[in-house]
Amino acid sequence: MSYYNFEEKENLTGADEHFMKLALNEAKKAFDNDEIPIGAIVVCQGKIIGRGYNLTEQLNDVTAHAEMQAFTAAAQTLGGKYLKDCTLYVTIEPCVMCAGASFWMQISRIVYGANEEKRGFTRINQNLLHPKTVLKGGVLAEECGRLMTTFFQNKRKEI
Amino acid sequence: MSYYNFEEKENLTGADEHFMKLALNEAKKAFDNDEIPIGAIVVCQGKIIGRGYNLTEQLNDVTAHAEMQAFTAAAQTLGGKYLKDCTLYVTIEPCVMCAGASFWMQISRIVYGANEEKRGFTRINQNLLHPKTVLKGGVLAEECGRLMTTFFQNKRKEI
Repeated sequence: MSYYNFEEKENLTGADEHFMKLALNEAKKAFDNDEIPIGAIVVCQGKIIGRGYNLTEQLNDVTAHAEMQAFTAAAQTLGGKYLKDCTLYVTIEPCVMCAGASFWMQISRIVYGANEEKRGFTRINQNLLHPKTVLKGGVLAEECGRLMTTFFQNKRKEI
Repeated sequence: MSYYNFEEKENLTGADEHFMKLALNEAKKAFDNDEIPIGAIVVCQGKIIGRGYNLTEQLNDVTAHAEMQAFTAAAQTLGGKYLKDCTLYVTIEPCVMCAGASFWMQISRIVYGANEEKRGFTRINQNLLHPKTVLKGGVLAEECGRLMTTFFQNKRKEI
């Protein structure tokens, strides 16, 4: 049983893959900066209104996740507080903190790439999202996940 | 059954009330700025290393909670990423986002004032905190809650 309103319909236009590739570009920026490679964008009516990648090392702030950066940027672009007609594309399943932030943002839709088996918010057996938020996982999952695997393999080699 | 490691021992020195009063001072700053009056401080070895109050209106950012401000400030003060020997004092029970942030911060202890019946993180039937985080609620709960009640009563009068 899932507590989440997972989207069933097909993505006929390929828009989700298109935007996930752009989120992956953000993740690659994180990778190049020696950050855990997670990237996010927020899209509203086909336009990117916020971007972000993981900055926890650079900002020395463990809460500086890609999604948090993208949310704040998107809200600033809109000049409003809520992301009601917006979609978050994020390469890895969000954590509890970012799911909680999306609740306050009242975001319409979350599309993620690879599952996060350890700290992903869907591991919690209760709905953490806003009732209006529709969820879709597994978009370009392999590519999104591979970037993470490569990052951690390289890290192990450094030790 | 509680999933949380609630603290049992007595607060013999009254230190928790002392620091909660300082968190209340932060909440009053929010009140004076027409923000939902929640305040937080982070204490390490008896010293305040981070403060914050709710800035969601001022920053036009629904994630700008008191705890998030205090966490970031505290991590900056320490020059480190984790708040391992620190206590968060916050006037109202944290939400899911802030509980999720405290996980990444690996904070040692969370002390809150009044319960948040609707969006408090303990409403979720699963532990959202770091395994090492000890929790204590109900410190100056009446005073912390009263500030919120007064704020919302005033808001209703304005309409």
